Parts: sequence; structure tokens; C-alpha cells
Amino acid sequence: MDIAALRTAHPEHWNMAAAIRALTLDAVAAANSGHSGMPMGMADVATVLFTKHLKFDASAPTWADRDRFILSAGHGSMLLYSLLHLTGYEEFPIEELRNFRQLGARTAGHPENFLAHGIETTTGPLGQGIANSVGFAMAEEMLRARFGKKFVDHHTYCIAGDGCLMEGVSHEAIALAGRQQLGRLIVFWDNNGITIDGKVDLSDRTDQVARFKASGWHVQEIDGHDPDAIDAAITAAKKSDLPSMIACKTHIALGSSAQDTSKGHGALTDATLIADAKSAYGWTAPAFEIPDDVKSAWEEAGRRGTEARFAWEVAFAAASDRKQAEFNRVMSGEVPTKLAAVIRALKKQMAEAQPKVATRKSSEMVLEVVNPVLPETVGGSADLTGSNNTKTGDLGVFDIDNREGRFVHYGIREHGMAAAMNGMALHGGIRPYSGTFMCFTDYARPAMRLSALMQVPVVYVMTHDSIGLGEDGPTHQPVEHLAISRATPNTLVFRPADTVETAEAWEIALTQTGTPSVLSLTRQNVATLRTAYKAKNMTAQGAYVLADAEAKRQAILMATGSEVEIAMKARDLLEAEGIGTRVVSMPCMELFEMQDEALRKRVLPAGSVRVAVEAGVRMGWDRWLLGERGREAKAGFVGMDSFGASAPAEVLYEKFGITAEAVAEKVKSLL
Amino acid sequence: MDIAALRTAHPEHWNMAAAIRALTLDAVAAANSGHSGMPMGMADVATVLFTKHLKFDASAPTWADRDRFILSAGHGSMLLYSLLHLTGYEEFPIEELRNFRQLGARTAGHPENFLAHGIETTTGPLGQGIANSVGFAMAEEMLRARFGKKFVDHHTYCIAGDGCLMEGVSHEAIALAGRQQLGRLIVFWDNNGITIDGKVDLSDRTDQVARFKASGWHVQEIDGHDPDAIDAAITAAKKSDLPSMIACKTHIALGSSAQDTSKGHGALTDATLIADAKSAYGWTAPAFEIPDDVKSAWEEAGRRGTEARFAWEVAFAAASDRKQAEFNRVMSGEVPTKLAAVIRALKKQMAEAQPKVATRKSSEMVLEVVNPVLPETVGGSADLTGSNNTKTGDLGVFDIDNREGRFVHYGIREHGMAAAMNGMALHGGIRPYSGTFMCFTDYARPAMRLSALMQVPVVYVMTHDSIGLGEDGPTHQPVEHLAISRATPNTLVFRPADTVETAEAWEIALTQTGTPSVLSLTRQNVATLRTAYKAKNMTAQGAYVLADAEAKRQAILMATGSEVEIAMKARDLLEAEGIGTRVVSMPCMELFEMQDEALRKRVLPAGSVRVAVEAGVRMGWDRWLLGERGREAKAGFVGMDSFGASAPAEVLYEKFGITAEAVAEKVKSLL
Repeated sequence: MDIAALRTAHPEHWNMAAAIRALTLDAVAAANSGHSGMPMGMADVATVLFTKHLKFDASAPTWADRDRFILSAGHGSMLLYSLLHLTGYEEFPIEELRNFRQLGARTAGHPENFLAHGIETTTGPLGQGIANSVGFAMAEEMLRARFGKKFVDHHTYCIAGDGCLMEGVSHEAIALAGRQQLGRLIVFWDNNGITIDGKVDLSDRTDQVARFKASGWHVQEIDGHDPDAIDAAITAAKKSDLPSMIACKTHIALGSSAQDTSKGHGALTDATLIADAKSAYGWTAPAFEIPDDVKSAWEEAGRRGTEARFAWEVAFAAASDRKQAEFNRVMSGEVPTKLAAVIRALKKQMAEAQPKVATRKSSEMVLEVVNPVLPETVGGSADLTGSNNTKTGDLGVFDIDNREGRFVHYGIREHGMAAAMNGMALHGGIRPYSGTFMCFTDYARPAMRLSALMQVPVVYVMTHDSIGLGEDGPTHQPVEHLAISRATPNTLVFRPADTVETAEAWEIALTQTGTPSVLSLTRQNVATLRTAYKAKNMTAQGAYVLADAEAKRQAILMATGSEVEIAMKARDLLEAEGIGTRVVSMPCMELFEMQDEALRKRVLPAGSVRVAVEAGVRMGWDRWLLGERGREAKAGFVGMDSFGASAPAEVLYEKFGITAEAVAEKVKSLL
Repeated sequence: MDIAALRTAHPEHWNMAAAIRALTLDAVAAANSGHSGMPMGMADVATVLFTKHLKFDASAPTWADRDRFILSAGHGSMLLYSLLHLTGYEEFPIEELRNFRQLGARTAGHPENFLAHGIETTTGPLGQGIANSVGFAMAEEMLRARFGKKFVDHHTYCIAGDGCLMEGVSHEAIALAGRQQLGRLIVFWDNNGITIDGKVDLSDRTDQVARFKASGWHVQEIDGHDPDAIDAAITAAKKSDLPSMIACKTHIALGSSAQDTSKGHGALTDATLIADAKSAYGWTAPAFEIPDDVKSAWEEAGRRGTEARFAWEVAFAAASDRKQAEFNRVMSGEVPTKLAAVIRALKKQMAEAQPKVATRKSSEMVLEVVNPVLPETVGGSADLTGSNNTKTGDLGVFDIDNREGRFVHYGIREHGMAAAMNGMALHGGIRPYSGTFMCFTDYARPAMRLSALMQVPVVYVMTHDSIGLGEDGPTHQPVEHLAISRATPNTLVFRPADTVETAEAWEIALTQTGTPSVLSLTRQNVATLRTAYKAKNMTAQGAYVLADAEAKRQAILMATGSEVEIAMKARDLLEAEGIGTRVVSMPCMELFEMQDEALRKRVLPAGSVRVAVEAGVRMGWDRWLLGERGREAKAGFVGMDSFGASAPAEVLYEKFGITAEAVAEKVKSLL
């Protein structure tokens, strides 16, 4: 690589890009860990993007109509942190860069959206960023359709590496973006030919250009170190009606002795290497220092969008109060007060009508009343629309010619769907929910974990939530999936017992601001158990006494979802034998855990035998069965300890011994 | 579709294919559930494949050199069951088809490999079959290289649907197969244009032909109902040195009133529809009956390979005793007796040398002695070779020109890697293991669950198993992943504390025949704690007393992996205060659970305070802390209840309070 030629051809650009490279080398050296090569390779692309195209104002990082910049290759986090520092983001003084990868710094090893503004999403697990980007771009289309181009008119830019493009989720994202012709999405592929193990060729020979074209993308190939070529490519990409991929041929760890090697991917901390690289760049400033002219050029870039932002604010102020309020409401994630009213009305109606329906159907009944009053909801399904019951009458289908449509046919892409929902939620203005079979939580899992880590309130509608799914068999029957979701920090897992609890669960899920929810819903019909209407959201307590003992209390049965009905029948059997039995419905363990100890003890007093019933594994139940410090109760569990089988649901409940009789027997064996 | 023309053009073929269609209609009607459309659409392809190309002998379903047939679109299971019945597989009498989707039948809703021979893999979760196929084809290449073409010379055929090709894992599989030029892999794409939600176009416009070509595949497009075209395409595919994709334009639910509709995807149970379809086929036989001429034509197809099998057996019998024995040994999964010897020798050496190394390094030390004596092992990594430590000196790299290589650079494809390992293990003759970061268990999860369900003894080498990973931060730090793996039925989860336990864990993992293993290994160095050599594999007990109380026992500390060292230090602190403390190392909860109660009680006697230490969530520990029926002990937990953070490992252990001091304090607070 002829660095000297690059320096001479575009000296101002070169020095601005060199600032990113120098800061990267300095921060990685200070941390003695991190990834140097990617920021060094992509500094030119980033410089052109931030100085010529990206619509942003560093002094107003939450401006709703800013372009979104997603660093899918999150290990190159110093690229982003350098840009945020150089352009003048208040939260990124030089101290933050000096503190790279240290406890409490905003400059975590990989970008974490919840640490500072300017970090639009959390990346690092490869492929997530590009899949988030699809959600960002969909959100922009939807909001533009709803609020008009005057208020919503921006692009989503994404830098993806070879790792992102090897991950399967990238296929789902690319195909979905191509199908939806998301013309505002522009992806830079950092085509450096290097992965951790060595050359990309070791494991991949995919023709990425042909691949993106096969999915309906506009594709260009450029030298990723040529600022003119980068500029022209972005200009062309913005003009295209299709999503754009710009294949940028780059040199990882440009200008260092580790250039074009897998060593260059990682932490370059050798003092001589660093000095030599800086010398090649013509960079003479001390570590973490930026020459004044370079600094002021970058700060100017950081102010490039100020005027546009002012203009936007003026236009926005001229809109009707109602429009302003609604826009601000959906962007802030505030829920209209009407939600509580429609939920209460439905609960009342259901307590009276007492339908015997599957809770997936209950969920649809809830959505039918919720979606009309929450225009920010966007539903979807991974090709199981009729089974997940996520599409209500008024939504319309999101499509190229119907950007106001609020239902997305995501296709058979659970992972891409979850990642797109994360992107929509991060964008703001949209409250996404989508469905698949509970068992396929597995496919969506990497993005579901990120929902929790990123603190986005997306809702996962997971139907067919047990062996109650029946004949499709063990490949489709979740057994460990409630435990998996419950094991994940910052996730609310709801398993409602009937339509009333389902309505309550939805109300809680839809009022979250920083926590995703998983709704675990049945395929099979269940009875309405909450037959006495209460305005209070009992599910918000996590667990509550559904039916108390009539005879002197000797047993407490705990259950969730479809098994609450079984617990109630077991209670009948036990009471008939004079064994006083309380039934506790526990639709959300996490919420119960948040209650104060006195309330938890009122629901689960010591001294009674406890038996939990759930058509899943026992893991997660012991805390409630045995008490957090143990010794509270003799306890037992009726559930699954193996995979399921293919047979009608009722046959399976018998085979696996999840019956009222088995529960009653278990209680008696413990008394 | 002009059914009449098809019937007239190839009457014998037509009737044989119609038998599949009729049996499918009959079985789905009997079960009142299932998927009719796919077998009806792909019957022609399957008929040509089974009657003209597939090398198999229905009377010898375990013949090692048979072609493998993988139904990736597993919901079309009646296609497979019909073929197995018609060609005369002993385990598929007509009663099995009558019993479709009923408890105890071999004809589960989706194909389950462990229920009968002839079912090569378990499918249903979409995309898994095509990704397994890549592993099957790799195993064939490897074994052909090792044992010669005389003994190993077969193809892997796979039928994939639109759903398989939308799933991200298909991208990983296709790219890997293309990179490795797996010329013996032939995939039929059932291009019927229909998914559950409607037309494929609703969610996908990918040009699949261009997509496969972009990954280096040989691609043909044919009419999937034209037997001559099918025949010619398979012939051409077999000749190609590249993996082949044959795009078969088909009509889902062919010949019924549901043809070419999403209704046709599901269960067609309407009697009139069924009668009309059969009439269109010219099929007059009663339900579940096959006319003699059709039956005998199919049975002849089932015997097509008998001669080839005899010839193979003759050639095999002529090979040296040693070669025969070795081939039979690896195909049966039997482990050489040398394994125990090298493990014992290493344990002895390590107990003496007492290295302070990361357990991922320990794992490499084990593999260095194991791989030379187990030529059936095939290692790999998802582009983290140097971090997972899965590549030992003698393996060589599997590549187009080195099929004897035993290390696979899977690329950044955790999911495809896991699914390929499943395929290799199912093929037989190979014992695969591979690595990634423990946190990316998430990406591999759908295939890891299938390892467990399918009962294949693959080994997952999951390194960087806690916040001990340090600066890469919470996106890379597993917290809930031990719980996730432990929640999965039929999975052994090992978290060894030092090199000795790591050796023991590997010994157990490598001697499994029907259970996958997950090895959870540290990034950071840990002390050798098993300093007294014992020949006995203590890890096989699941948990054991590593150090007993010196003073009167008041506390039992339980720990795994890197936290055992912390527990040992806590014990020192407590004993110094006169609090007798036992330390139990618990490298494998599942194995401990299998011990008899008396042993479990000897290790964990009642009456002492119990504290568990693990840098993960508490879920899964309560059973050991509190006793299965509760009331055994006062107990506490020192671990994680949130995501981690980006900082050096030792800083994080302090921040999250996982220290010897915290453990000692927890004990004292409970006494």
C-alpha cells in the first residue's frame, strides 16, 4: 500500500482519517487489549461518511431525524469512539478514550448503546448490527409514512465485516432488506480479506457482490482508501431505490507492519509497531493528542448537521400540537393512557364471558383492542401468522407500496426478525412484537439476549409453548425454553393462564421502557380461571393466590399457563380428601422476585408442602419451592425431565404424568 | 398442471410416485394432522432418486457405504416414511404409516433419527437438515481419504424447502460446502413458491440460483415433475466436482384442489379433496393399500443396491483384519482402550507439574495426547482457533486438496459448525468436536439442542466461559449459558477446575455414545487443585470432596471451574476462624444427579450451611443448595445476577463480588 501517495493525494482527508488511526493505536495500547486493525482499515470510509454524508449534529445526539450509524463489526469499537470524540460528542472527552475497556468507561470493549448517546446499538456478536440496521431502516420507512418526510427523512448506514457476512443472520437480514427494497439502508462491507484465523479464504470463497445482488441489492465495488471513490459511491447509494452494499477493498491495520495479516485484526500494542505506523501516517502528535487543525476540521464535521437540525426543529414547531405531541410520545416510548382502559374493559368482558380458548388466541383478542389505541405497535411473525395470532384486523401489511402497514411478514427468519425488532425499538417511534413457536426461541436467541442487554422493550410472542403442541413432536416442543428465557437477565417471562392474565401480561409488556418480554402461550384451549373481575393487574405481582385452601391449608400448588387449570383440578381432588390446598398462579417469576419479602411470604407462607406444576424442566422452580435460603418447605415438582414426543397433546400429558391426579399424589407423598 | 399428461407420459413412474401421494393423504387423514403438500409436490423427485440413483439396500439399512438421504424439509415426513415403507424397510410396515404421529410410532410428526433406521437425521427445525448434510458430505470425504474409495464412496442427497433456504443457517451451510467443494453433496430445492403464510414472495425474492452460484455451487433448474429431467439433473450433479443444487419447480399438493396454495402446505383431511386428488392420480386402491404391480416395482427399487452391497462386503472381507477392525471400530463409535491410558498418564503428569494455565489450554494439552490415539476425532473452530485451543499439532487442515486433514476452519459460523458436527456424528466414523466462545452457544443453540435430541456424542468446546473473559464485555461474557446448557435434556455440561478435571471431562465426553457434551473452559489461568494423583476419574462422579473440613464441619462450599480456586481460598479464610469447611468440586451436575442417593449424601451431608460459587446465574444450583425436597440446608449463592461489564477480569470479579472474602462472609451470615 502506497501510504505516501494516499497522504499526498488528499492531505486534509488523510490527516482526519489518521486521527482515527492514531487514537485507535493509543487506546488499544493503553488498554493493552482491543482490536486495532478494523478502525485503521475503515478510517477512510468513516471519515468520508462523517464529514460529507452522515446527517447528524454532535451537540444533539438524540435528534430524531439524524441518520443512524451502526457499527456491525463491533470489535472495531475504537472507530466509533474516535468519531464520537473527534466530532465533539459531550459524552466522549479524551478521558473516555484513555479509559478504553476499563470499568465504568463509556468506551466498553464493544459498543454498548445504553452507556452513551451516539452509540445506536450494541454490537460485537457478529451479524447483529447489520440485522439491526434492517430494523432501523424499516422503522424509518414506517415513521416517514406516518409522520411525513418533513419529520422523518434519514438513512441508516452500517459497517459490516467478513464475520458479519458469514453469520447466518446476515442472510436473513439481507434477504429481508432486499424483499422490502429498503432504499435508505446503506451497508459498507469492510472487505479486508482477513479473519482471526487467517485469510478469509481459509473458510469462505463467497462472491459477496453476487450474493447481495441475488437478494435484490444495489452493489458497488470501490477502493476503501480512496476518498473520492467513497464519496461517489455513497452519493450513488443514496440515489438508489434499493438497499445498497458498497464493497470497500481495504487493508486491515493499514500502514503498520501487521497490515493485511490476522495479527493486525487484534491488539497492536508493540511500541515500535505503533511508532512506525504513526510515522508512516506522518502523525507526530503525542498519544491521545490531536493537532489543532485536525481537531477543528473534525469539530466542524460535528457541526455540519446543526443547520439542518435547526430547520427540522422549526418545521416541527410549526406542526400541529397534536402531531408534535404524538411524535414525541412515540419517540419517547410513552404509552397512551387509553391502554389501561381497554385492557380493563377486556378483562371485565372476559371474566364474564369465560371463553375456553388457547392463550395464543387470547393474545390476539388483546391485540385486537390494543393495536387500535397504540399506533406505534408493529406486529409480525416468522411465517406462522395464523398460528401465532399476531395479526389483527387493522394492521395492514408492511410492503414496498404500503409503508404504513403495521404487520411484517418476516419470513422463516426468527433470528433476523428478532434482530430487526431490536433495531426498530432502538430507532424509536415503534413498539415491535412478533411471534414464532416457543421452541424456536433457539433460533432467535442471540438477538433475544441482546434485547435484554440493550434494554429494548420488544415483545416476543412465543406460542405452542409445551408438549401441548402435540403431534409435531419433540423438535417443536419446548421443554427447556422457559428456563432459558428466565435465566436471561433483564427479561420478563410471562406464562399466562387464561385470557385475563394474557391481557395483564400484555399491559405490562407494552408499558416497559427498558426490558423485553417473552409471552409463552398455549396452542391448546384452556379454561378462564380469573372469573371474578378485578381492576388490579394481578400479573404485575408476578404470583398471587388464585384459589385459597378451604380446609386447613396443608399444601400450596404453584403453576403457570396451561398447568394452572391442572393445579385447580388437583386442588379439587385434595380438598375432597380434606387436604386444604392453595393454588398460586405464577405468570411471571421475575416480577414476583421484585416484590417485597412480606408480600412474597403472604403468597407463599412457610409450613405447607409445595408442589409446582409446569410442562417444562424444573430448573428455576426450586427457589420458589424451597425458599431462597432453603428449609422453608417440603417440595415436589410435576413437569418434564426429558424431551417430549409426537402424539396428541392429551396423550402426552398423560404419558409424561402432568395431570391433576399426579399432582395430588405428589402432594400426598410429601405430607 | 396437466396431471393427465404426466400420467400418460411416464405411467410406471407416475403410479410409483402416486403411491407416495396416496399414502401421504391417507396417513395425514388418519392422524388428522401433518403436512400433505410437500410429499405430494416432491414425490416425483423422490421416486426418480430412489428408483434410479440412491445407493441403498432396504434390507441392510446400516450398510456403511449407503448414500445418505436427508429430508431437510422435515415437515414432509410422510415422503420419507412412504419411501421407507414402499421400498421394504422392515421397521416400516403399513401399520407404522397408519399410526402416523401417534405415541410410540416410528412415524413421528417430524423424522426422528433415533426411532428407526432409514431416518438419517432429525429434522423439522428448518435449515438443520441441509446443514447436517454438509457434515455428512464432509465425513464421507474424510473417511474416503482415510479408508479408500473401495470402502467409502457415496453421496449425500438432501431435499430442502423454501423455509430451509430462508433460515440463516442455510447460508452458513451453503458457503461452507461451496468453500470445501463438497462434490458428493446434492441438494434438491423444492421450489414450490409457497410457505405457511402464503406465497414465498410475501417475504422473499431471493434469486436462489444466483445465490448458490455465488457460493460456488453447480446449479441446475428443472421441472420437478418431469422424471427425465430429474434423472438427467441427478446424473449431471453426480458428475460435478462442486456441490450441486437442483432447483425443482414443483406444485405443492399437486393434483388436489389445494394445489399451489398455502392451505396445501398443511394437513389435507377433507374427504372430498382426498377422493378428488386420488381420482386425478388415477389411484383407485383403498386407503393404505398399494396395488401389487406398484408395490413390487417399489420393492425392486428397495433391492436395487443389494448387489452393490454384496460386492462391497466381499471387498471389505478381503481387506486386512486390521483395516476391517479399525473401520468397524470407528463406525460403531467404540473408543480405543489407549484413551484411558493416555488420560491417566496426563493426569499423573499434571498432578505433579501443577501448571497454572487456563482450562482452554488444559483442553489443548489433553487433545495433544488424545488426538494421536483417536484418529476419528475431527476438531474445529468458528474462527477462534488460537483462542479455543482446539487445533493440535498432528491434525492437518481439512481442505479440498487435503481430505485427510482433521481440523476444520468452519469460519464465523457457529450454527453451521454445530449442525455439520451433528451430520458427521450421524454419518458415523467421525467423532467431531469444535470450539467457540461460550457466549456464542447462543448462535449454535438450535443445533446443540438437536445434538441432545438426536443422541449424538459431539463435543462443544466453549471457552472464555465467564466474566473472566474481561475487556470484551457483556456481549461476550456468558452469564446464563451454563444454565441454558444444563436445562437441556441429555446434555453433559462440564466445567472443570483444572487440567486434571479437564482431562477427566474429555475422557467422559469422548466415551459417550448417545450424549453430547459441553466443555465450559476459562480464558484466564487457574491453579492446579487436584495435586494428588488418583487413577479414578473423579469427574465421572459429577461432584466430589476436593478438600474436607479440618475443624468441625459447619459449611460446604460448592463450586465449578475457575471458582473452585476461590472456594478453596474461602475455605482457608473460614478454617482460620475455626469454621470447618468442606469444598466440593462439581464439574458435572448431570453426572452427580445420576449417582445413587447414598453417595450424593456422603458428598453433601445435611446439617452444614451450603454456599455455591459460580460466575453465572444461580438457576440450576438450588437443587444442590437446598436439597431436592428442600429443608436440607441453609444456603446461599455467590455468582452473577446481571450481565457483566467491560473491564479486566480481576476487576470484574471484585466488582461482582465473586471473591473468597465474599464467600466467607456469605457462610458466616448463614451460620
